[in-house]
Amino acid sequence: MAVNLTPPDPVTVLPIAGVELGFAEAGIRKRGGRDVLLMKLSPGSRVAGVFTQNSFAAAPVQVCREHLGAGGAIRALIVNAGNANCGTGAAGLAAARRSCEAVAKALGCAPREVLPFSTGVILEDLPIDRLEAALPQCIEGLAAEHWVDAAAAIMTTDTIPKAVSCTAEVDGARVTVTGIAKGVGMLQPNMATMLAYLATDAKVAPAALARLVRETAEVSFNRVTVDGDTSTNDSFVLVATGQASNTEIAYGTLGYESLKHAVVDVAQHLAQTIARDGEGATKFITIHVHGAAAEEEAVRVAKAIAHSPLVKTAFFASDPNLGRLLAAIGNAGVRDLDTARVGLWLGDVKVIERGGRAATYREEDGARVMRSAEIVVRVELGRGSAGTTVWTCDFSYDYVKINAEYRT
Amino acid sequence: MAVNLTPPDPVTVLPIAGVELGFAEAGIRKRGGRDVLLMKLSPGSRVAGVFTQNSFAAAPVQVCREHLGAGGAIRALIVNAGNANCGTGAAGLAAARRSCEAVAKALGCAPREVLPFSTGVILEDLPIDRLEAALPQCIEGLAAEHWVDAAAAIMTTDTIPKAVSCTAEVDGARVTVTGIAKGVGMLQPNMATMLAYLATDAKVAPAALARLVRETAEVSFNRVTVDGDTSTNDSFVLVATGQASNTEIAYGTLGYESLKHAVVDVAQHLAQTIARDGEGATKFITIHVHGAAAEEEAVRVAKAIAHSPLVKTAFFASDPNLGRLLAAIGNAGVRDLDTARVGLWLGDVKVIERGGRAATYREEDGARVMRSAEIVVRVELGRGSAGTTVWTCDFSYDYVKINAEYRT
Repeated sequence: MAVNLTPPDPVTVLPIAGVELGFAEAGIRKRGGRDVLLMKLSPGSRVAGVFTQNSFAAAPVQVCREHLGAGGAIRALIVNAGNANCGTGAAGLAAARRSCEAVAKALGCAPREVLPFSTGVILEDLPIDRLEAALPQCIEGLAAEHWVDAAAAIMTTDTIPKAVSCTAEVDGARVTVTGIAKGVGMLQPNMATMLAYLATDAKVAPAALARLVRETAEVSFNRVTVDGDTSTNDSFVLVATGQASNTEIAYGTLGYESLKHAVVDVAQHLAQTIARDGEGATKFITIHVHGAAAEEEAVRVAKAIAHSPLVKTAFFASDPNLGRLLAAIGNAGVRDLDTARVGLWLGDVKVIERGGRAATYREEDGARVMRSAEIVVRVELGRGSAGTTVWTCDFSYDYVKINAEYRT
Repeated sequence: MAVNLTPPDPVTVLPIAGVELGFAEAGIRKRGGRDVLLMKLSPGSRVAGVFTQNSFAAAPVQVCREHLGAGGAIRALIVNAGNANCGTGAAGLAAARRSCEAVAKALGCAPREVLPFSTGVILEDLPIDRLEAALPQCIEGLAAEHWVDAAAAIMTTDTIPKAVSCTAEVDGARVTVTGIAKGVGMLQPNMATMLAYLATDAKVAPAALARLVRETAEVSFNRVTVDGDTSTNDSFVLVATGQASNTEIAYGTLGYESLKHAVVDVAQHLAQTIARDGEGATKFITIHVHGAAAEEEAVRVAKAIAHSPLVKTAFFASDPNLGRLLAAIGNAGVRDLDTARVGLWLGDVKVIERGGRAATYREEDGARVMRSAEIVVRVELGRGSAGTTVWTCDFSYDYVKINAEYRT
């Protein structure tokens, strides 16, 4: 059901000097297939990450925060699909630590130099024995070219692996950014996870890397939504191996902007693939909000539209149901919104002006836009100069079907 | 599809001295049937109301606020189903005013003594001529016994009329409270409206009536949700005709508490019927949250559960999907939530204790509760002594079907 989304061509997904990837079938994910991924990083790599805001942050997220917070080197990432290791208490924390210890022992580094990640069913114990047993195969298969296979190994209900690369010039040196991600979806079924791993060979100062991962999340993964539920395991990690020939990038420099452009490109592409592969998706929706008093306000309006079940079912039905869009904007909690200044376009068709139906609007024009598999909604609030873009998908019978089927 | 909900027995829905109801088929609602309701109030009646928080408040809501704000008498309410008169600009406001003028002329009162209400399709002009043409029939049929027919005349996608009565003793005098409501639903289909009208024959001081309508909304209609979308036309009006023999009720007295008990009973019953008749509903869900630091926090947690599409589809599937409930609580934005103190019960089954799966929990016990058409979820936050109750329904194929069918 993915909307205009084909598997990535492995030739276009570029290796990153200093990153090797290996995978194995550990038997953690019930539907079978490869479900464990090991990413080995060369010495000197720097890593920054942002994690879920859900109060029930999963055990591996807690360990990631601890290991990254310590400020030391990171030499490996270990990821499993099929079990979220969330709501699992002290045993879950112990299992996450044990996975770090096992990787550390195998690679000859310290456990605090390993970051663990899990995605899948919540409130079930992680079968750590199976993960450990799969490690030798992961290590044996380590290779720099494995990004697309790595993307497949972390999927849950994703239907297509998500991977992309971008290059940039920094101070005359060519740097590469490659990323993989998996989307929100259900495992068996259960609330699953957005995981995204981006790596670059650029040399980046630690403070600049920390800013870069935050700034990138804000305009990519934090702007995509399928059903408005924030998972317990969301993680976005950015690795800089420093193997390229550029001089180290500091925050706020031209080099920083060049690299950020490439990193944001990769992250936005992956974020969009997550919406295109949203559960039951038949339409890919881009929502631009302009004229807001602040970006936060623009995000609120865009997400009110993106989260409204009434709007999402109208997209599914190809129904230019203007009243639902109007009501969603009015429902966003913008204080003192002057509705008489609000405008709305569906694609190139102006449907709302001055808070009411546009004089030039014809139902058949709205219907034409709504029948497309790719729909752009543009909202003008008339309050200021801030804006944002959010990506989402429609809400179909299959969303209910995927999420209502009993965990098998 | 309504869950354990049968049409009200007209014998149990009691007339209120001072209120007469008349209706007609004006041809505003496309599916036909009676679609205009006139409520005539005796002189001396007092009226208070609360209205939608949506920025795109419909034209009739704006006129209601104006007429109630002026503080004068209210002698009639005029309601149409089939058109929301929202997003209709100056023409919509003029149409709402014209409906008041027409009623005023027919009943011999001032236009500002009439409150207008609309529910139905947004962004289409109200056919005010049809409404006016239907008024003589409404007036001819005015009678005190017409509450159940009145409930049917304001329905949009409701499948069952909603009406109920309750009596109370105030200072030794018997007073009666009768209410009707319609739920969230789609007309053709488009975002529709929660409308609720309660009347009592009690004598109530204006200040007490204004408090009573707010306090009642807070524990009834503001605690029910089907899909989290706040309509542009939501209105809840409380009429006190003063025809009972009680002495006038002031705020904070024992009489106030007695009347409030009856009014809240009626309002909660109607709020629950709205969830039972929610679009596509197959389960009726009651969510109690205890141990919150403040009621607002309890509401946030209860609504995070009630609005999660993942939780709602799990209810539909009778799947005791604990992880989704856990994640919804964690997603409620409660600051510094100590997850180790969180407990959760499905009916009589403890499923989460100290933030993880309860030691005594067995999947078959959870499955047994989830198969029931009436499910009680209880959450303990372990932070304080505040709590709340929210009612909702599940999320089925039929929700998508009802909302995805093209407006016909």
